Amino acid sequence: MDIQAFFKVTYGLYLISSMDGESYNGHISNTVFQVSAKPARFAIASHKDNLTTEYIRKSKVFSISVLQEDIDMDFIGPWGFQSGKDIDKFLAVNFKRGKSGVPIVLDKSIAWFECELLEETDTGSHIIFIGKVLDAQLLDDKKLPLTYTYYRDVIKGRSPENAPTYIEREKPGETGLSADTGNGESKKGTPGPAKYKCTVCGYVYDPAQGDPPAGIPPGTPFEEIPGNWTCPVCGVQKIDFKALREN
Amino acid sequence: MDIQAFFKVTYGLYLISSMDGESYNGHISNTVFQVSAKPARFAIASHKDNLTTEYIRKSKVFSISVLQEDIDMDFIGPWGFQSGKDIDKFLAVNFKRGKSGVPIVLDKSIAWFECELLEETDTGSHIIFIGKVLDAQLLDDKKLPLTYTYYRDVIKGRSPENAPTYIEREKPGETGLSADTGNGESKKGTPGPAKYKCTVCGYVYDPAQGDPPAGIPPGTPFEEIPGNWTCPVCGVQKIDFKALREN
Repeated sequence: MDIQAFFKVTYGLYLISSMDGESYNGHISNTVFQVSAKPARFAIASHKDNLTTEYIRKSKVFSISVLQEDIDMDFIGPWGFQSGKDIDKFLAVNFKRGKSGVPIVLDKSIAWFECELLEETDTGSHIIFIGKVLDAQLLDDKKLPLTYTYYRDVIKGRSPENAPTYIEREKPGETGLSADTGNGESKKGTPGPAKYKCTVCGYVYDPAQGDPPAGIPPGTPFEEIPGNWTCPVCGVQKIDFKALREN
Repeated sequence: MDIQAFFKVTYGLYLISSMDGESYNGHISNTVFQVSAKPARFAIASHKDNLTTEYIRKSKVFSISVLQEDIDMDFIGPWGFQSGKDIDKFLAVNFKRGKSGVPIVLDKSIAWFECELLEETDTGSHIIFIGKVLDAQLLDDKKLPLTYTYYRDVIKGRSPENAPTYIEREKPGETGLSADTGNGESKKGTPGPAKYKCTVCGYVYDPAQGDPPAGIPPGTPFEEIPGNWTCPVCGVQKIDFKALREN
């Protein structure tokens, strides 16, 4: 099976939101499509582990915000790579509540749909939710919708592990790179080089581990990583990393 | 509900094929998406009336060919607007058979997937089929995949009535145009102006009916229709129409 074929399927990128009482959560999804015209119905696919999946099952409502092409990783980061179990994603965003009470994100969005859950289907790692469209609005007719191709090729973003289209990076053993862990240059009893955290997705670079799939051997201090290295989780550059104090 | 919002959802365009014994059929679909990464699974939506839907249910296999951007309505026509009940769409196309025996169209395609049916879900007008990917191949890494936006905006194609994203044209009464049918310039006993048939989708222009939603009043001979008029079903130009002999 040729996994390159999977990159030729076209997707948009959307914010799926739902609620549990007064708690709101949402995440970025590429799997949104209309499955019936009369009546208008959408299908979305959500990973079983996602908090929003749990909220959709409880509240039986969800919203879809169509993201615009003019967007950056600072906006996408929390929605795509952080869990609502750790942060309240709705603190820093403009949203409204639909007829059903469901939160609808308005920032960086050109249209939205409010849906009532009709049924769900288990696909293995994900659940397909089918929803009846209760309401819809066009917010901006001039801006283009963000496509997954644009996100990957121009914004240089990656897929989170819970995406149905997630493809694992090659394992060190498979690329012939050394998987030797430990030792490096840090010495027992003295603090080693600092760990650095990605401010977009929360990934922590640990010098003791390095990033072997990207050719960074264990023991490489963050400062010595080449400038074209990018976050292995979300794809942002070194400039988006901050040193962790506790080290 | 604002129907303009629905145009902001991003889709690709694909050829879905299946079989019933030695009979092959296929149609164009915009609703194809990966719903699980491990194992790799795709969901597609097919209208209940489509012959391919019947074939998928019988054979439990289907293939997805990812269409390329460099394509024209002559290729799309039969696959998008004609039924396999009337024509054999596989007569004029290059295809191969997959491991399961399913036909896989290779023309105008940059990648394909062969899938085994796992389950189906009824969405009203359509069925969502979920299939496990048996095999996949990248055919061309240089050509771009055809998107629904490109098809609509550049190729000027339309959606067939069985598409989940089909939106009806305005009714004459709603646009304020005259819906006066009949009379026109043809006279009883003498042959009226000729009917013309669209060679791409099979739509027949009848001068007695005109095309009121497009501002063409009943009684307008085909020759007198303005040059920028397009087929109300598939969107091709006047040049793609041929006069019907029997009139």
